[in-house]
Amino acid sequence: MRPNYPFNCWYVAALSDEVGQGLLARRLLDKPVILYRKASGEVVAMEDRCVHRAFPLSEGCLDGDRVVCGYHGFKYDPDGTLVEVPSQENVPPGAGIRTYPIYETAPFVWIWLGEPGAAALRPPPRVPWYLDGSGWVSTTEVLRVEANFLLLHEHYLDLTDVFVTHPEVVPPDIQTLPPLNEVEISERSVAYTRMTPPSRLAPWESAITGLPEESVATRREEGTFVSPALHTQHYAIEVDGGDAYGLLRIHGFTPESPGATHVFLQMARNYANDEDTITEYLRIMFHEWAARDTKVLETIQRQLEEPGARRRDINVKADRAAIRARRIVMDMVDDETGRFALHRILTASD
Amino acid sequence: MRPNYPFNCWYVAALSDEVGQGLLARRLLDKPVILYRKASGEVVAMEDRCVHRAFPLSEGCLDGDRVVCGYHGFKYDPDGTLVEVPSQENVPPGAGIRTYPIYETAPFVWIWLGEPGAAALRPPPRVPWYLDGSGWVSTTEVLRVEANFLLLHEHYLDLTDVFVTHPEVVPPDIQTLPPLNEVEISERSVAYTRMTPPSRLAPWESAITGLPEESVATRREEGTFVSPALHTQHYAIEVDGGDAYGLLRIHGFTPESPGATHVFLQMARNYANDEDTITEYLRIMFHEWAARDTKVLETIQRQLEEPGARRRDINVKADRAAIRARRIVMDMVDDETGRFALHRILTASD
Amino acid sequence: MRPNYPFNCWYVAALSDEVGQGLLARRLLDKPVILYRKASGEVVAMEDRCVHRAFPLSEGCLDGDRVVCGYHGFKYDPDGTLVEVPSQENVPPGAGIRTYPIYETAPFVWIWLGEPGAAALRPPPRVPWYLDGSGWVSTTEVLRVEANFLLLHEHYLDLTDVFVTHPEVVPPDIQTLPPLNEVEISERSVAYTRMTPPSRLAPWESAITGLPEESVATRREEGTFVSPALHTQHYAIEVDGGDAYGLLRIHGFTPESPGATHVFLQMARNYANDEDTITEYLRIMFHEWAARDTKVLETIQRQLEEPGARRRDINVKADRAAIRARRIVMDMVDDETGRFALHRILTASD
Repeated sequence: MRPNYPFNCWYVAALSDEVGQGLLARRLLDKPVILYRKASGEVVAMEDRCVHRAFPLSEGCLDGDRVVCGYHGFKYDPDGTLVEVPSQENVPPGAGIRTYPIYETAPFVWIWLGEPGAAALRPPPRVPWYLDGSGWVSTTEVLRVEANFLLLHEHYLDLTDVFVTHPEVVPPDIQTLPPLNEVEISERSVAYTRMTPPSRLAPWESAITGLPEESVATRREEGTFVSPALHTQHYAIEVDGGDAYGLLRIHGFTPESPGATHVFLQMARNYANDEDTITEYLRIMFHEWAARDTKVLETIQRQLEEPGARRRDINVKADRAAIRARRIVMDMVDDETGRFALHRILTASD
Repeated sequence: MRPNYPFNCWYVAALSDEVGQGLLARRLLDKPVILYRKASGEVVAMEDRCVHRAFPLSEGCLDGDRVVCGYHGFKYDPDGTLVEVPSQENVPPGAGIRTYPIYETAPFVWIWLGEPGAAALRPPPRVPWYLDGSGWVSTTEVLRVEANFLLLHEHYLDLTDVFVTHPEVVPPDIQTLPPLNEVEISERSVAYTRMTPPSRLAPWESAITGLPEESVATRREEGTFVSPALHTQHYAIEVDGGDAYGLLRIHGFTPESPGATHVFLQMARNYANDEDTITEYLRIMFHEWAARDTKVLETIQRQLEEPGARRRDINVKADRAAIRARRIVMDMVDDETGRFALHRILTASD
Repeated sequence: MRPNYPFNCWYVAALSDEVGQGLLARRLLDKPVILYRKASGEVVAMEDRCVHRAFPLSEGCLDGDRVVCGYHGFKYDPDGTLVEVPSQENVPPGAGIRTYPIYETAPFVWIWLGEPGAAALRPPPRVPWYLDGSGWVSTTEVLRVEANFLLLHEHYLDLTDVFVTHPEVVPPDIQTLPPLNEVEISERSVAYTRMTPPSRLAPWESAITGLPEESVATRREEGTFVSPALHTQHYAIEVDGGDAYGLLRIHGFTPESPGATHVFLQMARNYANDEDTITEYLRIMFHEWAARDTKVLETIQRQLEEPGARRRDINVKADRAAIRARRIVMDMVDDETGRFALHRILTASD
């Protein structure tokens, strides 16, 4: 399976609290990477392979801010420069390994694995209403799904599966989800909104708001494909024209390989910030939700990998946002492949 | 490994009692299929994949005679027509999935996975002396063997291995199997017969006939490659010119994939129909027989799949029937491949 | 992964005491082989596959010096000739399977898997100081490492990893290994020596010599790539100009396949031959050493097998002997491939 993800894009490499003063090994866009934090707190990302023999640096250790290979003891500075070869006095000039630009906005550590010069041109995506706002409390989780990252984007851009896969979360008076209100499309992002007509509360809505189940509420759902690396899901419950109870799920989708995806999940809400029982309720609920989705997506991935399987789906209206997101990704990939091909033509005389 | 089985052939898809009012998923000729029984009792076979996304319908459920996808709830009629998309009011016109012709003659449910129009031209094979005769009692079993279906045919068309692999079934006065009496060949089938000279009974023969071990009997063995899908094995013990004790093993061999085969085994006899201890004795004996054969065939399959392995066997006289059966199958496959190639040439201007 | 080992070379097939009057199955240079000992004591090596169907002879048994297939009972003489087909009276003329030349010099059973005629031209390598000398006592061990055989050669030709992977074996006054004294290169072998400056004994050196840890000793280390099949490691501890305590590790490296290697390890010493506690101490120490090395080499192999992985190491001075050994092997492989290609051109008219 060829990669169907762009490289020139910031992806989430880890949660902030996963990276400390030890070596964290992680495969990202099919590249082996190590992550660690310098004494200064700054995060370093480096190719997970010694220049000498193909030994993974993640099997070695840190000596202060330097990485020591666990085979012959080769030592590297945080910028990737080889600074020590124990079996001889000098070091081969110019030797070193690739490092990757890092940008940390807690709880996410972002990485740039694309063309080295291009990282600074585009910052990682921001999630405005959450990042600049106080008043949100959140928990996080890391999952690994054995499915292509696009299957995850498509899944979360069409939630009409909830009636089948998560029937218990649907409010009691809703028989079908209303169509998408609006699909807002920019060159690189897709957002849809959906207003759900007034209905009594589902048990979980009652539990997390403290309101009685007979309360009638409307709901605004907004899903956004922010970039190939990020999907956000906003859900606001509005009762009797009062304040909205806002829930937010931020999904960092980072391809481990063409067939597997790391999911960095942040779950937040903007009310009753101190109530730990609500925090715990939402953490467990969204964990179970994600686990069930994982099972579905892994089943599809296995089906697509069967010998002779083709992708020849028919699409329906609810797929509008998902189709658009897929097209954006495909354009980015084609663009990179084309640029790379052009680059090879122009430099062919070298 | 390329498929070496013809598609235009009726194969056993399941035993009758395996198919009920739930969804049975089974891979047949490397195609994913679901089987279920309508309220009317009629069996339905359908591709195991929703038209929308590549989700297996077998993960969904039945709503009456209709199949409901377990992802977004798409609903299908037994003829494969898509009849409901929950997220919208209308249904994309003409959408549906492939269904397969079914023909049931208990205990077997036959399926046609080849060219859609051609099914009616050829009925599934019949096993005359059993089907039209009363007086036979039988048990059934389903096995899965990780070996190509031709290895199974070849194995049961040359039983000279019994001295090595099942020595306890050989009658005491027999040192070597006599050569095949006759190999009867038609365009599409092969049958051999072998008469074994008079010998005292083997312990199992004594047990299932109730005769003393000193009784002297002759045996007539007849093995038939009825079609690529079916092998029958008839064994008749004749004591002192009296009635023959007839045993019959009917093997439905259905490729799951080029490297694995479903075996639908029916074991029958034509005497002492009410004696359950004999039924049980034969069931256990043939089960152990099949289990030991499975081990042998899976060993060969692994050997053939080794890197660098070639098929370069030498043949001996006992292989006569097996070689002929292989040729019939190869001709059927070439015929299909050729027809397909011709079809592509003729339609190349499209 | 294409084979990177020469076929025209004697390899160790087994330890002498592994081969008895049963069938030992072993994959060598990606060929399935059986080994057994005739009543005369002579070792026989044969392709592990019946000529009739692809059944492994290792699943059968011996009848005296003859091999009996476990499927239809075909019987073979030790020279590979088919001598019996139970289902018929005569045997197809000229039928038989390939056997391989064997040369036994305990504790090793050597095999020739290359061009049939060429075996006699080159004897298996000898290890002079050990083979002709009395006064050495040894233990043996068989290991299997899931790594290419060249990784093992390279590993044992550059022991500067000991500071990282086996720090406890380094004598206390040694901070870095001195550079190789000499790398002696012949057309087909490589030997290096290294003299370590005077240092007190490491705990293990004290334990196996019985000398106090304060004793000051020099050490002479000599590693030899004898052939693609054999690496020897000689280590001599000299205390106060007295007798040297000699240790010897002889490694037979035999590719099982391009990705795995059988290691036949002989560990010997030339002093205190009767002291079983020293024998046991060394056996355990070298076993642990080999186990740790195995882990390292398997990690590298996995890394090299990752999709997209390339071999693009930089080399340092300590790699001098290893690089030379790799070149010898590559030349032998190219030579064989070239000769084979030439042979095909010259015989193309056949």
